[in-house]
Amino acid sequence: MKKSSFADRNCAVAQTLERVGEWWTLLILQNAFCGMTRFDQFRNHLDIASNVLANRLAKLTKAGILDRRSADDDGRAYEYRLTKMGLDLYPVIIALTNWGERWVPDPKGPRIKLVDRKNGKPVPAVTVRSMDGRTLNAFEVRALAGPGADRKTLELLSPRSRPTGVQFPVPSSKRKKAKPRA
Amino acid sequence: MKKSSFADRNCAVAQTLERVGEWWTLLILQNAFCGMTRFDQFRNHLDIASNVLANRLAKLTKAGILDRRSADDDGRAYEYRLTKMGLDLYPVIIALTNWGERWVPDPKGPRIKLVDRKNGKPVPAVTVRSMDGRTLNAFEVRALAGPGADRKTLELLSPRSRPTGVQFPVPSSKRKKAKPRA
Repeated sequence: MKKSSFADRNCAVAQTLERVGEWWTLLILQNAFCGMTRFDQFRNHLDIASNVLANRLAKLTKAGILDRRSADDDGRAYEYRLTKMGLDLYPVIIALTNWGERWVPDPKGPRIKLVDRKNGKPVPAVTVRSMDGRTLNAFEVRALAGPGADRKTLELLSPRSRPTGVQFPVPSSKRKKAKPRA
Repeated sequence: MKKSSFADRNCAVAQTLERVGEWWTLLILQNAFCGMTRFDQFRNHLDIASNVLANRLAKLTKAGILDRRSADDDGRAYEYRLTKMGLDLYPVIIALTNWGERWVPDPKGPRIKLVDRKNGKPVPAVTVRSMDGRTLNAFEVRALAGPGADRKTLELLSPRSRPTGVQFPVPSSKRKKAKPRA
């Protein structure tokens, strides 16, 4: 079954997922962030079929997310290392980690604890923040169409569009606080 | 073809992807964050096959990420709204957006601009931050096994494990700064 491609979509999320959104790919990248470089390491740790792993590594290399080079200690072997583009996926991997630890916890406690190498302090969960450092939830951010938006994106981002949550409807007090027109 | 499940893995990323990692799912959630609630809205905007969309919405509802209820204005229609668990995926969606805008930009400029509703200022890209607000890259964070780690996770997080980037190898100056053993 051929999966539909997101390559032509006018959407940053779709473009990202086109490169890293296939089943297994983000787990492979997480392992790279943990220091894995070799085909056999990925295969053994993830218990992934060789043909699938080869396919995913080739796509990540072609996309410029991983760099493939001969291993220093064995010219016949290859190492896969995160490029600058790949390392820039770190907030994605950590946001996925944070959500999983919070919503699908292990009964014995955290599987992974992230600490600041500088001082050993825990690294807080990733949040969306304002310029002045406040954590912003989805209701506190407005998504506006930019110059690269096409018709579909403009439709999606109509001025009325707001996230529609069950637990956190936009409080009416917020609406009242909007500046009255002069 | 039956896709392998990540349900039994001792890994927060895998547990998250088990719920939101299928092709299409994160795009559906992005649309929910933009205010979409109806089956037809998702289908028309995403141009997704009805059976695939129905499958994804059912899984998200079962997982507790979306809540399905009768629409207020039409008892025969359903609305899908983000639950608290679903809204907590906001940093994931924005991190994916940030990466796509940066690494796969549209030639005409940003497709979407995120602004703080409070003051209209741009919302900076999501980063991993320390307790005191410093942005941390992958080399500045140590992943330690927690009480929920199994043998495989312990192997992955050996004390020597570090991300292995092409562009940003761990600078040797950092290694020297490590405290000498007494």
